Amino acid sequence: MPTAVLLLSCRDQPGLVHAVAEFVLAEHGNIVHAEQHIDQGSGVFFQRVEFELPTADLDIERIEAAFAPTAERFGMAVQVRRSDDRPRVALLASTQPHCLADLLARWRSGELPAEIVAVISNHADHAGLAEFHGVPHHHLPVTPETREAQEAQVLDVLRAHDVELVVLARYMQILGRPVLDAYPSRIINIHHSFLPAFVGARPYHQAQQRGVKLIGATAHYATFELDEGPIIAQDVTPVSHRDSVADLVRKGRDLETVVLARAVRAHVEHRTLVYGNKTIVFG
Amino acid sequence: MPTAVLLLSCRDQPGLVHAVAEFVLAEHGNIVHAEQHIDQGSGVFFQRVEFELPTADLDIERIEAAFAPTAERFGMAVQVRRSDDRPRVALLASTQPHCLADLLARWRSGELPAEIVAVISNHADHAGLAEFHGVPHHHLPVTPETREAQEAQVLDVLRAHDVELVVLARYMQILGRPVLDAYPSRIINIHHSFLPAFVGARPYHQAQQRGVKLIGATAHYATFELDEGPIIAQDVTPVSHRDSVADLVRKGRDLETVVLARAVRAHVEHRTLVYGNKTIVFG
Amino acid sequence: MPTAVLLLSCRDQPGLVHAVAEFVLAEHGNIVHAEQHIDQGSGVFFQRVEFELPTADLDIERIEAAFAPTAERFGMAVQVRRSDDRPRVALLASTQPHCLADLLARWRSGELPAEIVAVISNHADHAGLAEFHGVPHHHLPVTPETREAQEAQVLDVLRAHDVELVVLARYMQILGRPVLDAYPSRIINIHHSFLPAFVGARPYHQAQQRGVKLIGATAHYATFELDEGPIIAQDVTPVSHRDSVADLVRKGRDLETVVLARAVRAHVEHRTLVYGNKTIVFG
Amino acid sequence: MPTAVLLLSCRDQPGLVHAVAEFVLAEHGNIVHAEQHIDQGSGVFFQRVEFELPTADLDIERIEAAFAPTAERFGMAVQVRRSDDRPRVALLASTQPHCLADLLARWRSGELPAEIVAVISNHADHAGLAEFHGVPHHHLPVTPETREAQEAQVLDVLRAHDVELVVLARYMQILGRPVLDAYPSRIINIHHSFLPAFVGARPYHQAQQRGVKLIGATAHYATFELDEGPIIAQDVTPVSHRDSVADLVRKGRDLETVVLARAVRAHVEHRTLVYGNKTIVFG
Repeated sequence: MPTAVLLLSCRDQPGLVHAVAEFVLAEHGNIVHAEQHIDQGSGVFFQRVEFELPTADLDIERIEAAFAPTAERFGMAVQVRRSDDRPRVALLASTQPHCLADLLARWRSGELPAEIVAVISNHADHAGLAEFHGVPHHHLPVTPETREAQEAQVLDVLRAHDVELVVLARYMQILGRPVLDAYPSRIINIHHSFLPAFVGARPYHQAQQRGVKLIGATAHYATFELDEGPIIAQDVTPVSHRDSVADLVRKGRDLETVVLARAVRAHVEHRTLVYGNKTIVFG
Repeated sequence: MPTAVLLLSCRDQPGLVHAVAEFVLAEHGNIVHAEQHIDQGSGVFFQRVEFELPTADLDIERIEAAFAPTAERFGMAVQVRRSDDRPRVALLASTQPHCLADLLARWRSGELPAEIVAVISNHADHAGLAEFHGVPHHHLPVTPETREAQEAQVLDVLRAHDVELVVLARYMQILGRPVLDAYPSRIINIHHSFLPAFVGARPYHQAQQRGVKLIGATAHYATFELDEGPIIAQDVTPVSHRDSVADLVRKGRDLETVVLARAVRAHVEHRTLVYGNKTIVFG
Repeated sequence: MPTAVLLLSCRDQPGLVHAVAEFVLAEHGNIVHAEQHIDQGSGVFFQRVEFELPTADLDIERIEAAFAPTAERFGMAVQVRRSDDRPRVALLASTQPHCLADLLARWRSGELPAEIVAVISNHADHAGLAEFHGVPHHHLPVTPETREAQEAQVLDVLRAHDVELVVLARYMQILGRPVLDAYPSRIINIHHSFLPAFVGARPYHQAQQRGVKLIGATAHYATFELDEGPIIAQDVTPVSHRDSVADLVRKGRDLETVVLARAVRAHVEHRTLVYGNKTIVFG
Repeated sequence: MPTAVLLLSCRDQPGLVHAVAEFVLAEHGNIVHAEQHIDQGSGVFFQRVEFELPTADLDIERIEAAFAPTAERFGMAVQVRRSDDRPRVALLASTQPHCLADLLARWRSGELPAEIVAVISNHADHAGLAEFHGVPHHHLPVTPETREAQEAQVLDVLRAHDVELVVLARYMQILGRPVLDAYPSRIINIHHSFLPAFVGARPYHQAQQRGVKLIGATAHYATFELDEGPIIAQDVTPVSHRDSVADLVRKGRDLETVVLARAVRAHVEHRTLVYGNKTIVFG
C-alpha cells in the first residue's frame, strides 16, 4: 500500500513535531514511520515522516499545497514523495561490470524501487548486459580531446530519458560542471577507498603501499571537488600482508557493489537529505 | 541538560503521534528525539519520545499525572523517566572477571548513566576489584544443597540496596522463580553464543565441535526458560579451524564484554521495551 | 604461472614438513605458499603446499607417482592439483536468481577459477540468464511423486557434463542418497541462517519470531543429515525490531550471495580439506 | 609446553623451507606451526616457524648458534624466541584510562604473555589503578618547556625496568628521537582513526566534520613521522548522522581498546615482522 513521505528541514523550535502530526491527522492519515534529527552544531531540525492516506488523496501536488501553510509558518524546506514513486535512473559505467550488473539484477528482482531507464558507457562492453535487462544502452566514447562534447551528449541522453538520478557505477571519467550542476545531490559515485583516505587515482595501490589492514568503499554524492562530496554509505573488509593489489581489487569489488547498492537504495527510497557536506540517511 | 523520556505502547491508530506531540507542546517542551515502531503482526504501536522541559517541571509524577488523560484515551501503557535518572544496578559474577571489570570501568569513566550499588558473587575473587571501585561486595557462596537459601540471600541484598536492574556478568548460577519474578524484564544475562545456537552449557565446546566459522554472544533478559528470554544485543567474531576451545574462550570474552555493555547501556538509557519475547531497542 | 598444490593429511609426527620440502627440492620446485594445521584433539596433521615447477614437469600423475614413496612412508592421504586446474561446476537453482546470477557473473569476470558447465533448475526462469552466459540450461521439473526420477535425471546431467563440483545455489529441493553419494564433499549448499541456529524450513521466519539481532548465512558441504554438513563459510548482518520478514529476506540475499561465493572460491582453489564433520579452509 | 619460534627473512630462493625443516629435524624438534610469505614486489621471503624441542634443548643462544650456518648460507635475518619468553612491557598513558585499564586486566587474566613492569604517565590519575595491579607507577609531568628533560626521565625509567616493548596507551605526548631510536619497531601507538585518514590532532572532530559513516582505530609502530609508522592492526565501527563528537569518542574507545590489545598481543607472541613501512602479522 503506497504511502506519502515528507522530508523536511528547518530551524529547530518547539511545536514542529506537533505541527506535522496535526497536518497528517487533518489529512486523515496514519503515520507509519517517523524519524527526526537535530544537528546540534547548526540547530537545524530534520524529519522524515511516512504516512498512509486514502489512495484517492495520495496526490503529491495536492499534499504540497495542503502542507504549504505549515511549511511557511516554520520556514521549512520540504520534499513530498509517494513511496511508490520510482525515480528514473541512469547508470554510467566504463569497462568494469560488477556494480552495473549488480544494480541491474537488484532492479530486476524488484529490490530497487526505481526505473533504470538508460545505461551509458564510454565503452561498448556492456551493450549485451543492458539488452539482457531490456535497458537502452548508449555508447558514448570519450578521449581527452572530446571530453566536453561527450559530456554534452551524456547530458542530452539524461534529458531525453528524463533521468532523475545518475549513478556512476565505476564510471572512470571525471564529470564537469554542466552535468554536476544539472543534478545537484542527484549523482551518486562509488569510490574504492574508505574516504577521506586514498582520494584520487589507484586507491588499492595506495592502500597496498601503505600496508593498511582494511580496505573500504565509499558512496557519495558527486560534487565539483573530486571525492569530497557528502558521504552516503561506507564499508570496509579486512586485508593482510598476504593480499596483493589484485587481491585488494577482487575483495574491493564486493565492497563497491554492496556499498553503492545501499546508497542508491537509500536515495530512491527517499531516505536521504543533504545538508552542507553531509548526508542524513534515515533508517 | 536533563530531558524527559516517554516509552509507550498501544494499539496502532491515527492520531497517536499528534496526541503525544500535543501533550509535549502543552507542557512547553521541545522534542529532541522521537522514534516509533509499528509491529505489523500484532498492530501494536511503540514510541520513545525524549523532550526538554523547564527544569522545574521535570517531575516524573507530575508528568505521569499530566499525561494520564492521553494514555487513557488511547489505552497506552507508558513509562516516564528523566534522562538523568540513574537506575540502581547490581552486578552478579562468579569467577570470571572480564564483564564485571568492564562494567565497573565504564561506570567509573562516566559512560554508564547508572549507579552500581552492589557486586554479588558466589566467589570471593572480586572483592578487591569491587573495593577498588568503591562498591560493596557481597560474597554469597552456593552449593547445590544451599541454592534456595542463597537465592533468598541474593534477593535480600538486592532489596537492601533498592536495586532496579540486575546484571548477570557471567554469573554461572541459574536463578530461580523468586528472583526472576521480582525483576521482570530487569535481569540482563550474557550468554556466550549467538542464540538460539548452542543453548545450555559449554557453548564454546559445542561451537568447536560443530566447526562453525564464527562465534557469538547474546545479551538477553533472563526468563524462566533458560537462554530463551528477549534478546537485547548480539554480536559475532570470525573463527577458524586453527582456533582451539581456549582460543574461542579468549575471543569470546571480548564479545561478551562488549555485547553485555551495549545491552546494559540501552536499558539504563531507557531505550528498551519488551513485548512478547522480543526487545525493541531504540537507537 | 601455474603451480602445483599438495593437500595432505596424516598422523602428526616429526619430519613431515622436512619430507615434503625435500620432495619439492628434489623436484627443483620452489614453495610459494605453505600452510599447516595440527588438530590437537585427534593428533592429525594437515598441510597445503603450493610450489612452482618447470612447466614441463607440471604433470599431476607424474607428481603423484613421484610423491608416492613419501606418502607411503608417513601414511599420508594426498591430493595433487595444478593451480590452473579449473573444476567443472554445475549450478542448481530453483526460482531465486541471486546466487546463480552472482556466481555466473564472478565466473564471467574471471574471478572464479572454474568452468561452469551446466545450470540445472526445477524451474524454467533462468534459461535466459544461462543463455546470456553461454551455459547450457537443463530444466528438470520435480513433484513429490517424481522426485526419485528427477534426481536420476539430475545425476545423468551431472555425469554427461563430467561435473566435479555441484553448487546448490538456493536449490530448494532436498537431494537423496544417489546424488549425495556420487559427490562426497563435492556438493556445496547455502543455508540462510547462521547454523546451527534455525535449521530446516523458513529460517528468516524463525529468526523474526525469535527476535534475533543478527541474521546469517552458512555455506556447507551437503550430507545426508540436512543442514548438518561440514561448514565452509558463514557470515552475519545486523537486524533490528524494525525489520520485517521481507527485510530479513532482502538483507539475507546479500549474505547468501557472498558466503556461497566465498565457499565455492575456496573449493575451486583447492583450499578446503574435510575431516570428520569440519572443513579446514586454508588462507 | 614451551616451544621455540624462528622469525626469519631473506631473498626468496628454492630450498628455504627445506633448510629450516632440516634444521628442526636435526634438532629432534617437531614443527607445530609454520607460516610463510613472499613479498612479490621485493622478492623477499618471510617465515615464522614454531617447533617443540626437548626442554633441555630450549636454549635461545644454543639454538641461534646451531642455526647460524643455515642463516649464513641463505643470508637470513633471524630472531629466535621461546614461546614462554614474556617481553617486559611499559605502558605510557595520559589522562584517559581505557586502554591502560584494559591491558592491565588482560595481563592479570593471563591473556597477555608478557610482564607489565611499569606504568608511566604525565598525570597522576592512574596511580591507584597501577597499584591495584601491583605495577610500579611513575608520574613524570611534562610541559612544553620540560619536554626534552621529561623524555630523558622516561628513557631512564624504561632502562631501569629493562623494558623491551613500549605501549603508548593513549599517551598524548609526541615522543622525540632519543626514545624512538632506543626502541625501533618496539613502540606501539594507538591512533584514533583508520589511518591514513585523519592524521594528527582531534581525529573524531575531523571525522564528524567530514560526515563519515564509520570511524576507526589504528595500532602502529611509532616512527619519527607522526602516524606514518607500520600498521599492525585496524578496525572500524559504523556511525551515523545521529552521532555527536561525544558519541564518536565513546564508540571509539571500544575500538581503541580492542585494536591496541590485538597489536600488543601479536607483538608479545612474536608474530610480527616489520619490513619497510609494513608489518607482517602472522596468524
